[in-house]
Amino acid sequence: MSKEITPRAKDYSQWYNDIVLKAGLADYSAVRGCMVIKPYGFALWENMRDQLDKMFKETGHQNAYFPLFIPKSFLSKEAAHVEGFAKECAVVTHYRLMNDPNGGGIVVDPAAKLEEELIVRPTSETIIWNTYKTWIQSYRDLPILINQWANVVRWEMRTRLFLRTTEFLWQEGHTAHATSQEAVAETLLILNVYATFAEEWMALPVVRGVKSVSERFAGAVDTYCIEALMQDGKALQAGTSHYLGQNFAKAFDVQFTDRDNKLDYVWASSWGVSTRLIGALVMAHSDDSGLVLPPKIAPIQVVIVPIYKGEEQKTMIDGKVKVYLSEFKALGIRATYDDDDNNRPGWKFAEYELKGVPVRIAIGARDLQNNVVEIARRDTKEKKSVSMEGLAQTVAALLEDIQANIFDKSKVYRDQNITRADTWEEFEKLLDEKGGFIAAHWDGTADTEEKIKERTKATIRCIPIDNPQETGACILTGKPSKERVLFARAY
Amino acid sequence: MSKEITPRAKDYSQWYNDIVLKAGLADYSAVRGCMVIKPYGFALWENMRDQLDKMFKETGHQNAYFPLFIPKSFLSKEAAHVEGFAKECAVVTHYRLMNDPNGGGIVVDPAAKLEEELIVRPTSETIIWNTYKTWIQSYRDLPILINQWANVVRWEMRTRLFLRTTEFLWQEGHTAHATSQEAVAETLLILNVYATFAEEWMALPVVRGVKSVSERFAGAVDTYCIEALMQDGKALQAGTSHYLGQNFAKAFDVQFTDRDNKLDYVWASSWGVSTRLIGALVMAHSDDSGLVLPPKIAPIQVVIVPIYKGEEQKTMIDGKVKVYLSEFKALGIRATYDDDDNNRPGWKFAEYELKGVPVRIAIGARDLQNNVVEIARRDTKEKKSVSMEGLAQTVAALLEDIQANIFDKSKVYRDQNITRADTWEEFEKLLDEKGGFIAAHWDGTADTEEKIKERTKATIRCIPIDNPQETGACILTGKPSKERVLFARAY
Repeated sequence: MSKEITPRAKDYSQWYNDIVLKAGLADYSAVRGCMVIKPYGFALWENMRDQLDKMFKETGHQNAYFPLFIPKSFLSKEAAHVEGFAKECAVVTHYRLMNDPNGGGIVVDPAAKLEEELIVRPTSETIIWNTYKTWIQSYRDLPILINQWANVVRWEMRTRLFLRTTEFLWQEGHTAHATSQEAVAETLLILNVYATFAEEWMALPVVRGVKSVSERFAGAVDTYCIEALMQDGKALQAGTSHYLGQNFAKAFDVQFTDRDNKLDYVWASSWGVSTRLIGALVMAHSDDSGLVLPPKIAPIQVVIVPIYKGEEQKTMIDGKVKVYLSEFKALGIRATYDDDDNNRPGWKFAEYELKGVPVRIAIGARDLQNNVVEIARRDTKEKKSVSMEGLAQTVAALLEDIQANIFDKSKVYRDQNITRADTWEEFEKLLDEKGGFIAAHWDGTADTEEKIKERTKATIRCIPIDNPQETGACILTGKPSKERVLFARAY
Repeated sequence: MSKEITPRAKDYSQWYNDIVLKAGLADYSAVRGCMVIKPYGFALWENMRDQLDKMFKETGHQNAYFPLFIPKSFLSKEAAHVEGFAKECAVVTHYRLMNDPNGGGIVVDPAAKLEEELIVRPTSETIIWNTYKTWIQSYRDLPILINQWANVVRWEMRTRLFLRTTEFLWQEGHTAHATSQEAVAETLLILNVYATFAEEWMALPVVRGVKSVSERFAGAVDTYCIEALMQDGKALQAGTSHYLGQNFAKAFDVQFTDRDNKLDYVWASSWGVSTRLIGALVMAHSDDSGLVLPPKIAPIQVVIVPIYKGEEQKTMIDGKVKVYLSEFKALGIRATYDDDDNNRPGWKFAEYELKGVPVRIAIGARDLQNNVVEIARRDTKEKKSVSMEGLAQTVAALLEDIQANIFDKSKVYRDQNITRADTWEEFEKLLDEKGGFIAAHWDGTADTEEKIKERTKATIRCIPIDNPQETGACILTGKPSKERVLFARAY
């Protein structure tokens, strides 16, 4: 496979696919819309997952695991929910294969038809609330703060590696509370966990907001989200946290006795982020040479490449590198030494650039004499010669600097691409020529939102939290509006 | 729910279910044969998973993720494989639901029928080898050492919590090698990883062995296994590692160019352990008061319970406990302080006993004056008063002692229950009266193995690694045999 990456300016979409495939993050599979997450991509996901998991646990959540299958009747119990998911469900109808008696090979055994079809979970509210019913009697059983890491399936018609796949990996939190206030507080707590994770770990600046009614999760009272901006000016929803009110408690008849000994339905939240975040990460930071990974989640933070002639030089370099590797390890730096002699240094430089390794260190025989190494940083591609003295500390500081620089660069870009539009002409022109988020007045109706979407493909990404209140006129209808909302074309 | 546990002597099977349900490890679900793994059970699984994952990575393996779905035609490509799995497959036939035009609610949309049915993976050899085909051209692409943590589905007719469920969680390693020797070495490497994990972490003594032909994995050349003994004298297969030869490479046409530039099929191994291990853990160590957990994998290693009257005493105890908790944390001890005033100390003692927490510390007001605490260990139920001086070190040593004691006790039991039988009468009598592993001569034929199984329900669990060679006569047929094999009734 050629390692060449299509430039962004030539074909942004192809650039994205090239990076995902050629950096070894994922591969297509033989199953329509499903992908293979390759070891390098999975190591990235593990780093993201482990950090999120830590943050969930620190905020009082526990992991559990619920069945993959959902009885069809469960999905139907919450009206909006089934409406939202029925059109994209993988349905299990049989439980056995057999040899075709007519010699047609292996076929589905018609005698093994399920009485009730099972849906491969597209999300787990229904099976979980059916379980919570047996766990909750009294306010003493609340809150329940559970998360699960799982695979889910949504039969998408158009798929893209990581961004939209039929099967994807995610976490889904499902919490149960005695009061509405508590459930709302939980929803916002997680929104902030997501935003902190995106900004501090993925170096991805996000807008925290609430969705319009049309963009709500199927079954939610309110959907909060974090929205990020990609380099092509399109927005990407990076995580959602839903306040579910009593919708699922009512659908599954989950009541509890409160402190005053009165029966009430339980209040709920649910929230999730998925492997889609990897797509966001690629699109937000990478360049025409390949991936650019924030050090905090990079599988390899530092690669050391020896440059030598003959075994004698190699042995001297090996000795030095061994010391550095143990110093790096002591500082918690994930470093690797690539002394594979099948590939030349130049090939390795390109390879690690493609893979987005934040820091590359080259050590040659002359460097040993001069007591220096060459350090290249992936984000800016700057190279410099630095002293071997205190190298581990130098690298630790550099990794922090790279993390901050990737975030700052993305933030400047994002901030420069939130633009106000006050007329329809401005709005359309901005969408076509600049992209990004457009802050515009909207009359608050789903009808107008739909018309804007039909005409421009732009949707309301969110109404930001703490949005300044400002009277104005809807860009489409001219009707009065009390605040601007963020529009964008989106993934 | 009553916390009472049915005694083993009364009903072993009910005892097991009582512990799983009442200790909060798992719950039944609304989906036939599928269970809910509750937070306490999942925390136990996380500890097991994290340790295994570390051991896999230390031996050079990487994680990846392959699709949940397998095209029906893939499953059919390896003849023995499809024979082994076709009868227990969940089959996806449709990808959409719709509103019944006749008002019958939500139904499967007949227009959304898949051209080729998809099987929910019962194991992933086929989809993975179909992928490896595109990754492997030359010996330079080998070995591939990949593991995945995943859910799998096998439509079992009779299910038991953890031991046999329709959906279960597991890891499955799939490796590809340039030579048969390497693939065999990998198979044995993992067998030893599994045995080390079982013995050192789960405190579960195991026999390492190879399966007879009839008990091989569907598609394997050789299946190695670790076999454990439960308290009722039945054996339990705790993990398997398969040498697959070139079977899957041939089925999926995966060839590589070797160092001599010749084409050959790739050699393979696959290996797995599952949430079934939790069932083994419960059955091996627990008693009539509940779970007994080895400290190394216990979600909570130490619980501290305050015993006090009034706020003043409570405050003094709190202060002391705070210091201990930070000392425990510094030593890597997972400790928790249960000062919930809704429950009395006696209730808590029973609760943590049920949950198998290895060490319980009670601190009362008088203890503070005397500079002592009461420590109870779960495995032997011994209680003693120990000095507050150096408590963290005392507890750390005690946890090690408990880990060793649980293993030693199981090992003595296991060793006492490997019994030789030299005649059919002895064999039957041992099975009915003593149980355990029975070391007996067998003529090596599948036919005899099957007859023994039909008559006694005992199967050949394994032929131990390094089995002493000893001539003898088959217990059933009297035909010559060159070694004893281990028979048992098994889960």
